[in-house]
Amino acid sequence: MVFELKYVIIVAGGSGQRMNTAVPKQFIPIAGKPILMQTIEAFTRFDKDLKPILVLPDCHVSYWESLCEEYHFDVEHQVVVGGETRFESVKNGLDALPQIDKALVAVHDGVRPMVSNDTISTCFESASRYGSGVPVVALVDSIRRVEEDVNFAEDRRRFRLVQTPQVFDYELLQRAYCQAYTPLFTDDASVVEALGVGVHLVEGNRENIKITTQDDLVWAEVFLKKSDE
Amino acid sequence: MVFELKYVIIVAGGSGQRMNTAVPKQFIPIAGKPILMQTIEAFTRFDKDLKPILVLPDCHVSYWESLCEEYHFDVEHQVVVGGETRFESVKNGLDALPQIDKALVAVHDGVRPMVSNDTISTCFESASRYGSGVPVVALVDSIRRVEEDVNFAEDRRRFRLVQTPQVFDYELLQRAYCQAYTPLFTDDASVVEALGVGVHLVEGNRENIKITTQDDLVWAEVFLKKSDE
Repeated sequence: MVFELKYVIIVAGGSGQRMNTAVPKQFIPIAGKPILMQTIEAFTRFDKDLKPILVLPDCHVSYWESLCEEYHFDVEHQVVVGGETRFESVKNGLDALPQIDKALVAVHDGVRPMVSNDTISTCFESASRYGSGVPVVALVDSIRRVEEDVNFAEDRRRFRLVQTPQVFDYELLQRAYCQAYTPLFTDDASVVEALGVGVHLVEGNRENIKITTQDDLVWAEVFLKKSDE
Repeated sequence: MVFELKYVIIVAGGSGQRMNTAVPKQFIPIAGKPILMQTIEAFTRFDKDLKPILVLPDCHVSYWESLCEEYHFDVEHQVVVGGETRFESVKNGLDALPQIDKALVAVHDGVRPMVSNDTISTCFESASRYGSGVPVVALVDSIRRVEEDVNFAEDRRRFRLVQTPQVFDYELLQRAYCQAYTPLFTDDASVVEALGVGVHLVEGNRENIKITTQDDLVWAEVFLKKSDE
């Protein structure tokens, strides 16, 4: 296998977000340190040479720096200021990469610290082979489609829930992010697909949830503590 | 509001299941008692007059009875033997109901003990008004459709994940379950819909997951202990 540079762009909120009284989820400590640090470490644990690029809203940068000091967080990473949307934030992250020939770039949600080493590894392998690796999981629940006034059952076997990291060949991802933004771009796979390029799906890990509610936090705390043992 | 009898059919595995060495999930104790007891109590806590009908595989009935003794579980409930499929099990549960004129019947998965009082109440209210009440939640993750060789992004705003309890007017549900079984019947809403009758969706609660993995168990333990405090 050719040696390929590996990057991960970790997106943690656009600049539209204000620093409210409540600490944003990504900074809340679970199992001993802020979620974002857990997330970054999941990637450097996978490959110590992997280069993390952290995209933060302007207003959170100095807070993040103070947290790094407080927690003696010494994992090397680059901080980039985000845009109004997730799309813009990823674009800013990509722009911060050096002029590179051949590389694989993962894009990952800052609030998904429970990504497994297997998931990360499978996504990079797939991207190295096929140009893309997007982790998905099957549905446990039934699913319905909702239209204006009606809703109806769909066959759940035909659907997958999409997680991150979504890993791509650098050149492909760069080209995808030159397109004009549309609100249908909810993840990187949808941006790449808009080029007319299909994406390659791989198996994610079920625990790799996006921490959004208070209950998710409780569960993440339990899970990450258990993994530490 | 007219007084309406309320039933809940709790489905806990078909007769096809064997009692393996590992205890089936529904019998595993969390937060002090087996999951199935937690599930039944969620309903009698909502309404002490509600009548629970527990559908169990033949081979689990005596084990369940011994558990009820061991845990001094004194919530009144009727035990019914299940069929090969979930469809048959619900049908057996329905057949066990007395000849009734007007009633609301909930169908609930035995391994969803974290259903909230609000969800149960909203589902029954909706069924009383519209004939059906089916709890759903929006998607946090992106979603893709997978076909033989391709996969593509779908607009996640157009989908909902479906939970239980699914509550129906007794007569409607009875009629639905007279239809011939097809493998597309993954829940009761899809069975009712096959009659050509639309179902009414209400908001579920996100924690109301179907306990399927070891990690789900850990999370349920934390959640139910917290609710007890």
